[in-house]
Amino acid sequence: MEAANQAFYDAVENSDLDALEAIVLTGPLAESVAVVHPGWPVLRGRREVMRSYALIMANTEYIQFFLTDVEVAVDGDTALVTCTENILTGGPAEDDGSAGSLVGGLVVATNVFRHTPEGWRLWVHHGSPVLADESDDPEAAGDPDA
Amino acid sequence: MEAANQAFYDAVENSDLDALEAIVLTGPLAESVAVVHPGWPVLRGRREVMRSYALIMANTEYIQFFLTDVEVAVDGDTALVTCTENILTGGPAEDDGSAGSLVGGLVVATNVFRHTPEGWRLWVHHGSPVLADESDDPEAAGDPDA
Repeated sequence: MEAANQAFYDAVENSDLDALEAIVLTGPLAESVAVVHPGWPVLRGRREVMRSYALIMANTEYIQFFLTDVEVAVDGDTALVTCTENILTGGPAEDDGSAGSLVGGLVVATNVFRHTPEGWRLWVHHGSPVLADESDDPEAAGDPDA
Repeated sequence: MEAANQAFYDAVENSDLDALEAIVLTGPLAESVAVVHPGWPVLRGRREVMRSYALIMANTEYIQFFLTDVEVAVDGDTALVTCTENILTGGPAEDDGSAGSLVGGLVVATNVFRHTPEGWRLWVHHGSPVLADESDDPEAAGDPDA
Protein backbone atom coordinates (compact mmCIF):
# COMPACT_ATOMS: atom_id res chain seq x y z
CA MET A 1 0.00 0.00 0.00
CA GLU A 2 2.81 2.42 0.86
CA ALA A 3 4.28 1.38 -2.50
CA ALA A 4 1.31 2.84 -4.38
CA ASN A 5 1.61 6.08 -2.43
CA GLN A 6 5.35 6.26 -3.12
CA ALA A 7 4.78 5.48 -6.80
CA PHE A 8 2.43 8.44 -7.00
CA TYR A 9 5.06 10.84 -5.65
CA ASP A 10 7.82 9.22 -7.75
CA ALA A 11 5.74 9.83 -10.88
CA VAL A 12 5.39 13.54 -10.09
CA GLU A 13 9.04 13.81 -9.01
CA ASN A 14 10.18 12.17 -12.24
CA SER A 15 7.77 14.28 -14.29
CA ASP A 16 6.53 10.96 -15.68
CA LEU A 17 3.00 11.51 -16.94
CA ASP A 18 2.70 7.92 -18.21
CA ALA A 19 3.53 6.55 -14.78
CA LEU A 20 0.97 8.90 -13.26
CA GLU A 21 -1.65 7.81 -15.80
CA ALA A 22 -1.13 4.25 -14.55
CA ILE A 23 -1.65 5.24 -10.91
CA VAL A 24 -4.75 7.43 -11.16
CA LEU A 25 -8.01 5.49 -10.93
CA THR A 26 -9.83 4.49 -14.12
CA GLY A 27 -13.21 2.79 -14.54
CA PRO A 28 -16.60 3.73 -13.11
CA LEU A 29 -15.11 6.13 -10.53
CA ALA A 30 -12.87 7.97 -13.00
CA GLU A 31 -15.28 10.91 -13.19
CA SER A 32 -15.12 11.32 -9.42
CA VAL A 33 -11.33 11.36 -9.11
CA ALA A 34 -10.59 14.47 -7.07
CA VAL A 35 -7.36 16.39 -6.62
CA VAL A 36 -6.65 19.60 -4.72
CA HIS A 37 -3.23 21.10 -5.34
CA PRO A 38 -2.08 23.39 -2.50
CA GLY A 39 -4.11 26.59 -2.62
CA TRP A 40 -6.15 25.47 -5.63
CA PRO A 41 -9.86 24.81 -6.02
CA VAL A 42 -11.01 21.17 -6.37
CA LEU A 43 -10.25 19.48 -9.68
CA ARG A 44 -12.75 16.72 -10.34
CA GLY A 45 -12.57 13.98 -12.93
CA ARG A 46 -9.58 12.04 -14.24
CA ARG A 47 -9.28 14.14 -17.39
CA GLU A 48 -9.08 17.47 -15.55
CA VAL A 49 -6.68 16.01 -12.99
CA MET A 50 -4.30 14.66 -15.61
CA ARG A 51 -4.40 17.95 -17.46
CA SER A 52 -3.36 19.81 -14.31
CA TYR A 53 -0.42 17.50 -13.76
CA ALA A 54 0.70 17.92 -17.37
CA LEU A 55 0.70 21.69 -16.81
CA ILE A 56 2.52 21.41 -13.49
CA MET A 57 5.16 19.10 -14.96
CA ALA A 58 5.64 21.46 -17.91
CA ASN A 59 6.23 24.35 -15.53
CA THR A 60 8.38 22.60 -12.93
CA GLU A 61 12.10 22.35 -13.56
CA TYR A 62 12.81 20.25 -10.48
CA ILE A 63 10.73 18.85 -7.64
CA GLN A 64 11.57 16.43 -4.89
CA PHE A 65 9.33 15.07 -2.14
CA PHE A 66 10.63 13.96 1.24
CA LEU A 67 7.66 12.24 2.86
CA THR A 68 7.36 12.22 6.64
CA ASP A 69 4.57 11.28 9.08
CA VAL A 70 3.29 8.67 6.63
CA GLU A 71 0.31 6.89 8.17
CA VAL A 72 -1.72 4.23 6.38
CA ALA A 73 -5.11 2.71 7.14
CA VAL A 74 -6.63 0.00 4.98
CA ASP A 75 -10.24 -1.11 5.17
CA GLY A 76 -11.30 -3.56 2.53
CA ASP A 77 -10.89 -1.99 -0.90
CA THR A 78 -10.19 1.49 0.43
CA ALA A 79 -6.95 2.86 1.82
CA LEU A 80 -6.21 6.20 3.43
CA VAL A 81 -2.72 7.65 3.54
CA THR A 82 -1.88 10.86 5.35
CA CYS A 83 1.59 12.33 5.07
CA THR A 84 3.65 15.47 5.18
CA GLU A 85 5.30 16.43 1.90
CA ASN A 86 8.59 18.23 2.51
CA ILE A 87 8.99 19.68 -0.96
CA LEU A 88 12.09 21.02 -2.61
CA THR A 89 11.43 22.75 -5.93
CA GLY A 90 13.85 24.40 -8.30
CA GLY A 91 13.41 27.13 -10.83
CA PRO A 92 14.81 27.12 -14.38
CA ALA A 93 18.58 27.01 -14.83
CA GLU A 94 20.38 30.35 -14.91
CA ASP A 95 21.62 31.84 -18.17
CA ASP A 96 25.18 30.84 -17.29
CA GLY A 97 24.06 27.20 -17.04
CA SER A 98 24.12 26.94 -13.27
CA ALA A 99 21.17 25.40 -11.42
CA GLY A 100 18.17 27.56 -10.58
CA SER A 101 17.32 28.55 -7.04
CA LEU A 102 15.74 25.96 -4.74
CA VAL A 103 12.68 26.63 -2.63
CA GLY A 104 11.36 24.50 0.21
CA GLY A 105 7.73 24.03 1.13
CA LEU A 106 5.60 22.16 3.62
CA VAL A 107 2.37 20.52 2.48
CA VAL A 108 0.10 18.03 4.21
CA ALA A 109 -1.75 15.48 2.12
CA THR A 110 -4.62 13.07 2.47
CA ASN A 111 -4.59 10.43 -0.26
CA VAL A 112 -7.33 7.86 -0.76
CA PHE A 113 -6.73 4.76 -2.85
CA ARG A 114 -9.12 2.09 -4.16
CA HIS A 115 -8.09 -1.48 -4.77
CA THR A 116 -8.63 -2.72 -8.32
CA PRO A 117 -7.68 -5.93 -10.14
CA GLU A 118 -4.56 -4.01 -11.28
CA GLY A 119 -3.64 -2.91 -7.76
CA TRP A 120 -4.14 0.21 -5.67
CA ARG A 121 -5.17 3.27 -7.63
CA LEU A 122 -5.40 6.92 -6.55
CA TRP A 123 -8.95 8.21 -6.06
CA VAL A 124 -8.36 11.38 -4.03
CA HIS A 125 -5.30 13.54 -3.44
CA HIS A 126 -5.70 16.67 -1.35
CA GLY A 127 -2.61 18.68 -0.57
CA SER A 128 -2.66 21.90 1.44
CA PRO A 129 -0.07 24.31 2.73
CA VAL A 130 0.74 24.32 6.44
CA LEU A 131 0.36 27.95 7.36
CA ALA A 132 0.99 27.87 11.09
CA ASP A 133 2.85 25.94 13.74
CA GLU A 134 1.01 23.10 15.40
CA SER A 135 -0.82 24.97 18.11
CA ASP A 136 -3.58 24.63 20.62
CA ASP A 137 -4.89 28.04 19.61
CA PRO A 138 -7.34 27.45 16.77
CA GLU A 139 -7.78 31.15 16.09
CA ALA A 140 -4.08 31.66 15.54
CA ALA A 141 -3.63 28.41 13.64
CA GLY A 142 -6.74 28.90 11.54
CA ASP A 143 -5.67 32.31 10.30
CA PRO A 144 -4.01 32.01 6.89
CA ASP A 145 -2.10 35.21 7.67
CA ALA A 146 -0.73 33.87 10.95
CA MET B 1 -25.48 10.68 1.57
CA GLU B 2 -25.68 14.47 1.16
CA ALA B 3 -27.59 14.39 4.44
CA ALA B 4 -24.57 13.07 6.32
CA ASN B 5 -22.37 15.73 4.79
CA GLN B 6 -24.86 18.44 5.69
CA ALA B 7 -25.22 17.06 9.22
CA PHE B 8 -21.46 17.40 9.65
CA TYR B 9 -21.53 21.09 8.72
CA ASP B 10 -24.69 21.70 10.75
CA ALA B 11 -22.97 20.28 13.84
CA VAL B 12 -20.03 22.67 13.46
CA GLU B 13 -22.33 25.58 12.61
CA ASN B 14 -24.45 24.89 15.68
CA SER B 15 -21.37 24.38 17.84
CA ASP B 16 -22.95 21.04 18.76
CA LEU B 17 -20.15 18.75 19.90
CA ASP B 18 -22.56 15.91 20.71
CA ALA B 19 -23.97 15.96 17.20
CA LEU B 20 -20.43 15.93 15.83
CA GLU B 21 -19.51 12.99 18.09
CA ALA B 22 -22.35 11.08 16.45
CA ILE B 23 -21.11 11.81 12.93
CA VAL B 24 -17.39 11.07 13.29
CA LEU B 25 -16.50 7.42 12.67
CA THR B 26 -16.10 5.06 15.62
CA GLY B 27 -14.99 1.42 15.68
CA PRO B 28 -11.88 -0.19 14.18
CA LEU B 29 -11.09 2.83 11.98
CA ALA B 30 -11.44 5.42 14.78
CA GLU B 31 -7.67 5.69 15.20
CA SER B 32 -7.30 6.54 11.52
CA VAL B 33 -9.90 9.31 11.39
CA ALA B 34 -8.09 12.23 9.78
CA VAL B 35 -8.94 15.91 9.73
CA VAL B 36 -7.05 18.84 8.25
CA HIS B 37 -8.38 22.26 9.22
CA PRO B 38 -7.40 24.98 6.74
CA GLY B 39 -3.70 25.74 7.14
CA TRP B 40 -3.23 23.13 9.87
CA PRO B 41 -1.16 19.97 10.00
CA VAL B 42 -2.97 16.62 9.86
CA LEU B 43 -4.88 15.60 12.97
CA ARG B 44 -5.14 11.84 13.17
CA GLY B 45 -7.36 9.79 15.44
CA ARG B 46 -10.88 10.43 16.65
CA ARG B 47 -9.74 11.72 20.04
CA GLU B 48 -7.41 14.36 18.62
CA VAL B 49 -10.00 15.38 16.01
CA MET B 50 -12.77 15.85 18.58
CA ARG B 51 -10.41 17.82 20.82
CA SER B 52 -9.65 20.21 17.95
CA TYR B 53 -13.34 20.79 17.29
CA ALA B 54 -13.99 21.45 20.96
CA LEU B 55 -11.26 24.13 20.86
CA ILE B 56 -12.56 25.62 17.62
CA MET B 57 -16.12 25.74 18.94
CA ALA B 58 -14.93 27.36 22.18
CA ASN B 59 -13.13 30.06 20.19
CA THR B 60 -15.76 30.69 17.52
CA GLU B 61 -18.56 33.11 18.28
CA TYR B 62 -20.41 32.55 15.02
CA ILE B 63 -19.81 30.44 11.95
CA GLN B 64 -21.99 29.69 8.95
CA PHE B 65 -21.27 27.47 5.95
CA PHE B 66 -22.81 28.03 2.54
CA LEU B 67 -21.90 24.92 0.57
CA THR B 68 -21.50 25.13 -3.19
CA ASP B 69 -20.11 22.78 -5.86
CA VAL B 70 -21.23 19.78 -3.80
CA GLU B 71 -20.34 16.60 -5.70
CA VAL B 72 -20.92 13.12 -4.34
CA ALA B 73 -19.60 9.73 -5.45
CA VAL B 74 -20.61 6.53 -3.70
CA ASP B 75 -18.88 3.20 -4.21
CA GLY B 76 -20.02 0.43 -1.91
CA ASP B 77 -19.35 1.40 1.69
CA THR B 78 -17.28 4.47 0.80
CA ALA B 79 -18.49 7.89 -0.25
CA LEU B 80 -16.53 10.91 -1.41
CA VAL B 81 -17.93 14.42 -1.16
CA THR B 82 -16.12 17.43 -2.53
CA CYS B 83 -17.49 20.89 -1.90
CA THR B 84 -16.68 24.54 -1.53
CA GLU B 85 -17.31 26.00 1.92
CA ASN B 86 -18.26 29.65 1.70
CA ILE B 87 -17.67 30.54 5.32
CA LEU B 88 -18.95 33.49 7.28
CA THR B 89 -17.42 33.83 10.73
CA GLY B 90 -18.02 36.39 13.39
CA GLY B 91 -15.89 37.67 16.21
CA PRO B 92 -17.06 38.25 19.78
CA ALA B 93 -19.75 40.84 20.41
CA GLU B 94 -18.62 44.41 20.95
CA ASP B 95 -18.56 45.95 24.41
CA ASP B 96 -21.71 47.94 23.59
CA GLY B 97 -23.54 44.67 22.91
CA SER B 98 -23.59 44.97 19.12
CA ALA B 99 -22.57 42.01 16.99
CA GLY B 100 -18.88 41.42 16.26
CA SER B 101 -17.40 41.89 12.81
CA LEU B 102 -18.06 39.24 10.16
CA VAL B 103 -15.33 37.77 7.99
CA GLY B 104 -15.82 35.68 4.85
CA GLY B 105 -13.58 32.88 3.70
CA LEU B 106 -13.33 30.34 0.90
CA VAL B 107 -12.31 26.78 1.68
CA VAL B 108 -12.42 23.65 -0.45
CA ALA B 109 -13.07 20.33 1.22
CA THR B 110 -12.77 16.66 0.44
CA ASN B 111 -14.81 14.54 2.83
CA VAL B 112 -14.76 10.75 2.89
CA PHE B 113 -17.52 8.80 4.63
CA ARG B 114 -17.80 5.11 5.50
CA HIS B 115 -21.11 3.31 5.74
CA THR B 116 -21.81 1.66 9.08
CA PRO B 117 -24.85 -0.10 10.56
CA GLU B 118 -25.72 3.33 12.06
CA GLY B 119 -25.39 5.15 8.74
CA TRP B 120 -22.71 7.18 7.01
CA ARG B 121 -19.89 8.32 9.29
CA LEU B 122 -17.07 10.80 8.62
CA TRP B 123 -13.65 9.21 8.12
CA VAL B 124 -11.70 12.05 6.51
CA HIS B 125 -12.25 15.80 6.33
CA HIS B 126 -9.63 17.92 4.61
CA GLY B 127 -10.31 21.62 4.24
CA SER B 128 -7.87 24.01 2.62
CA PRO B 129 -7.88 27.69 1.75
CA VAL B 130 -8.26 28.72 -1.87
CA LEU B 131 -5.35 31.07 -2.38
CA ALA B 132 -5.71 31.91 -6.06
CA ASP B 133 -8.26 32.19 -8.80
CA GLU B 134 -8.90 29.12 -10.89
CA SER B 135 -6.19 29.46 -13.45
CA ASP B 136 -4.36 27.57 -16.14
CA ASP B 137 -1.07 28.87 -14.79
CA PRO B 138 0.07 26.38 -12.17
CA GLU B 139 2.99 28.55 -11.07
CA ALA B 140 0.74 31.48 -10.28
CA ALA B 141 -1.98 29.32 -8.75
CA GLY B 142 0.47 27.27 -6.70
CA ASP B 143 2.04 30.29 -5.09
CA PRO B 144 0.47 30.94 -1.67
CA ASP B 145 1.44 34.59 -2.02
CA ALA B 146 -0.31 35.00 -5.38
